[in-house]
Amino acid sequence: MSGSHLPTDPVTLARDLLRCPSVTPADGGAQALLAGVLEGMGFETVHLPFGPAEAPTPNLYARLGTGHPTLCFAGHTDVVPPGEGWAHDPFAAVVQDGRLYGRGIADMKGGVACFVAAVARRLEQGPLKGSISLLITGDEEGPAHFGTKPVIEWLAEREELPDFCLLGEPTNPEALGDVIKIGRRGSMNAVVTVQGVQGHVAYPHLADNPVHRLLAAFSELTARELDAGSKWFDPSSLQVTSIDVGNPATNVIPAQAIGRLNIRFNDLHTGAELTAWIEDVVRRHAPSAEVQVSISGEAFLTQPGEAVTCLSDAVRHVTGRTPRLDTGGGTSDARFISRYCAVAEFGLVGATMHKRDEHVGLETLEDLTRIYLAFMEGYGL
Amino acid sequence: MSGSHLPTDPVTLARDLLRCPSVTPADGGAQALLAGVLEGMGFETVHLPFGPAEAPTPNLYARLGTGHPTLCFAGHTDVVPPGEGWAHDPFAAVVQDGRLYGRGIADMKGGVACFVAAVARRLEQGPLKGSISLLITGDEEGPAHFGTKPVIEWLAEREELPDFCLLGEPTNPEALGDVIKIGRRGSMNAVVTVQGVQGHVAYPHLADNPVHRLLAAFSELTARELDAGSKWFDPSSLQVTSIDVGNPATNVIPAQAIGRLNIRFNDLHTGAELTAWIEDVVRRHAPSAEVQVSISGEAFLTQPGEAVTCLSDAVRHVTGRTPRLDTGGGTSDARFISRYCAVAEFGLVGATMHKRDEHVGLETLEDLTRIYLAFMEGYGL
Repeated sequence: MSGSHLPTDPVTLARDLLRCPSVTPADGGAQALLAGVLEGMGFETVHLPFGPAEAPTPNLYARLGTGHPTLCFAGHTDVVPPGEGWAHDPFAAVVQDGRLYGRGIADMKGGVACFVAAVARRLEQGPLKGSISLLITGDEEGPAHFGTKPVIEWLAEREELPDFCLLGEPTNPEALGDVIKIGRRGSMNAVVTVQGVQGHVAYPHLADNPVHRLLAAFSELTARELDAGSKWFDPSSLQVTSIDVGNPATNVIPAQAIGRLNIRFNDLHTGAELTAWIEDVVRRHAPSAEVQVSISGEAFLTQPGEAVTCLSDAVRHVTGRTPRLDTGGGTSDARFISRYCAVAEFGLVGATMHKRDEHVGLETLEDLTRIYLAFMEGYGL
Repeated sequence: MSGSHLPTDPVTLARDLLRCPSVTPADGGAQALLAGVLEGMGFETVHLPFGPAEAPTPNLYARLGTGHPTLCFAGHTDVVPPGEGWAHDPFAAVVQDGRLYGRGIADMKGGVACFVAAVARRLEQGPLKGSISLLITGDEEGPAHFGTKPVIEWLAEREELPDFCLLGEPTNPEALGDVIKIGRRGSMNAVVTVQGVQGHVAYPHLADNPVHRLLAAFSELTARELDAGSKWFDPSSLQVTSIDVGNPATNVIPAQAIGRLNIRFNDLHTGAELTAWIEDVVRRHAPSAEVQVSISGEAFLTQPGEAVTCLSDAVRHVTGRTPRLDTGGGTSDARFISRYCAVAEFGLVGATMHKRDEHVGLETLEDLTRIYLAFMEGYGL
């Protein structure tokens, strides 16, 4: 393969990807485009549609080389809806004043393009020592049931798990080099439904006020300090997100009260342990209450080691800044990957992600490409 | 005046009143009918419309005699809507199988008719020693802003307050003679609105969860045992009637939470003291919360004395049963009267009040008339 055919410019691929209208669950041709580029670079690609046969989630896996170390770059081609009021067509990939505009440029088509361009530049230097793969889903912004989760499981079954996974989410709040994410807190939701016995407020002994039971349970839950944080994590936090009774009558004790809460928990807790605690507290105050818990993801941490150090060095080499190792913020597909292999996250600047006029500076696309390339070199690829 | 013209039969007047369709705020001719009957007995009557000039609340005051003691019978001619499914026309005053059917016969046109019939029988015996008045409103079942309240104030201004007031509400749960009400608990409502700062559950330090503040305040409010009851009263009771947030997003800390509560309080408390307590507790947990309190009525008690003893004796004389002196249940217009003079409540059987096929036994109309007459005699009228 001649170097002159390699897609070493991240801006070109990013603009091509932006022009694919891939609002979840649509693919808009993004994965076929990407597969074509990767095949042109020598990757073997496989499309892995999971989920309902009538509307499967598009996923793409591509691999180049068979040696070690094996690095997997993970990401997604789907984007959130553009919303209204953009200065430019959100799918036209307009460049203006040194910025590239488009829905998903930061989150995270730009990151995908930079990684591909970095691989291209690496290939220009000669054959890989190890191997590189890409795990790309078309449902990160949606329910995510049939995206990264079954693909990483598929890799595990084939004993093809990478040594390290780099997720290209926009981890930097303000400038390239701010933050490498080495873990995420877990997240879980609970819905507590308390049935009581309706009655007149003048005769409380003939009724059973479900609001009082919910109040007692939720007060005990919110009163507990779950922890004070751990080495790499912020404190765990329980937030009651809603309580709803909907009783308009001032003289009536209502029949039902519903409370909702979310917990973001660090590595000092597990979803199962917190579920048992919630159920215990609720049942003590409201024995017949219904407690529905859903665990979005467990907390995970990639202990800083060789790979994270390489990544940090690469960031410092290109930007001159030492990135903070962080586990804050919401969830990402790293929660699925972390069950099977070490994963860290580093990508573009997320300041405009999910917002109107999402954009990145053209120089950050170049810098991120150089960071990914420096990481590959440092990691022994 | 010849005794033969006096309306000594409660059934005749009750049926005439039932045929007036006086669903609040309508009068249906009820007060003019009653005024005519009373004038025929020698009463001086005055119509006292209060409230908006375009839709005043009809009220009737009638007085016979100038001496002491002065007994006032208080009641109302308005009724609640009949609803559907009656066996008989609810305004046709049908008598069947010894029962008189009609909306308002128990609550409380029957009580009014019995009192008038009792006065008629008393007048047959000779001139009054004291004086008798009737305070009849056309808005007891509605907002009651322009009914008994301004009428009793009008009487106070004229220095024409009675020595004792007998309210003819249906106080007996099952049989005539069950209960004399000598007081009522007070009632107050509070609406607490807590404004917080909306945010993402993953960043609680950037938000201010109003549900947590409301939870803390309402938990403290519900945890307090207000009292264990007093000599004549059940314990005071605070009931949270609703909490409403309405936040459908599991990852969002909401901006606002609203809680509602009602307190039924006995003579160990006042509305002002409880208001100050609620405001103090809420402000401690949610300094900027808005607290809206409305006091429907203070607790009141007519200490059992001469008048209540006479009434109890009269009930026992006619029914052979000793009525329980009670302060339970909801509110009544006695809350307005009690500010100005001693008041007790005794009337028909309330089992069917506000229900389909409201009715009373004809014999209870006769018995209640005899009880009212015995009371007048015992009280020195």
